Amino acid sequence: MATIGFIGGTGPEGLGLAMRLALADDRVLIGSRRPDRAEAAAQQVREALAAVGREADVGGGVNRDVVREAEIVVIVVPFDGHEATLNDLREEIGGKIVVDAAVPLAFVGGQPGIAAVEQGSATEQAQALLPEARVIGAFHNLSARKLQALEDEMAGDVLITGDDAEAKQAVMELVERMPRLRPVDAGALAMSSFVEGLTALLLSINRRYKSQAAVQVVGIE
Amino acid sequence: MATIGFIGGTGPEGLGLAMRLALADDRVLIGSRRPDRAEAAAQQVREALAAVGREADVGGGVNRDVVREAEIVVIVVPFDGHEATLNDLREEIGGKIVVDAAVPLAFVGGQPGIAAVEQGSATEQAQALLPEARVIGAFHNLSARKLQALEDEMAGDVLITGDDAEAKQAVMELVERMPRLRPVDAGALAMSSFVEGLTALLLSINRRYKSQAAVQVVGIE
Repeated sequence: MATIGFIGGTGPEGLGLAMRLALADDRVLIGSRRPDRAEAAAQQVREALAAVGREADVGGGVNRDVVREAEIVVIVVPFDGHEATLNDLREEIGGKIVVDAAVPLAFVGGQPGIAAVEQGSATEQAQALLPEARVIGAFHNLSARKLQALEDEMAGDVLITGDDAEAKQAVMELVERMPRLRPVDAGALAMSSFVEGLTALLLSINRRYKSQAAVQVVGIE
Repeated sequence: MATIGFIGGTGPEGLGLAMRLALADDRVLIGSRRPDRAEAAAQQVREALAAVGREADVGGGVNRDVVREAEIVVIVVPFDGHEATLNDLREEIGGKIVVDAAVPLAFVGGQPGIAAVEQGSATEQAQALLPEARVIGAFHNLSARKLQALEDEMAGDVLITGDDAEAKQAVMELVERMPRLRPVDAGALAMSSFVEGLTALLLSINRRYKSQAAVQVVGIE
């Protein structure tokens, strides 16, 4: 079991992922800019696990301390804080495995879309800002609400991009510990924009179907 | 049952779609710039259906004649011929339903990617070039090889984009006639780039898994 640190982990997506990984017996650390918010989020994770009769190994702290202690760092900040947050934590992150789950969502003419990112995607931006880190893209396409509903199993694939085979393998093993979610190797970091774009597409589908949809890749078994 | 005309229908994707729709008892017309190629492709459809004990209602002709006779026009030309072909057929297409299946694939640094299209996507380009037509995006993410393997049922969703509700409904009904394929309303035409991008992502996944993968949306039932 690994120690997973969540940067910007007090939002709904970060909380949901933290709960699911705590449920898989990983040690989870919630990072925030404010320690009181981080501790409140950690408490939410504890309570959510207690509600399904489980104990969570969870702590909270400022982002910088969480990064220092974590083996794997998961970036779940809203995209408008993505660049500044990563610049700020570059030194502490060093050569660690970074899982970027940020999606540069933008609404254009009322339709969900993706903002242009100079590097092509949020995940590639993370690798550009953190040249020593081993950046992997994952967890873009899961519903925060479903992640937090621990009494329900989740269905869906986690599409994973990355250029570092060992880091990718570590993240795929992390996903395998989350019941019914399946890791799918979607290729190189350069494929990240398409995975991030899928989030916009799922939002559009959710509007039509009043759903919390996910995707599954069929035909790779 | 409808009369479906395929423009540029002699390639593997067009042939596969024509076979599947002929199997669903639609009348299928294969269009090409060269009538001999169109007739040869129609003959391939006949033979493929005969091999599974079925008869095909299929004909072949030049693109212009096929458009005139078709109720629904499916665009399956390679993207580098997309603009010229549509410009050339604008008058004949008029206000018909046009299903655009073209994907502006481009390989960058050995990775599957999508070429920049001024209008945002191939499907939006089609609507811009054919302002009177009712353009719908569909059939971007199905394996040509699997489409042609009529002895096997296909699995996967057909993500459908469009701004004309009636035309979208007609295309969704077309997909429903293809066993085990399911139409999914993915929203407005503006969402087309994400559906086209998914094709690049599937190609990347296919490389990793040596597969002919498709996608399914889960959680909208």
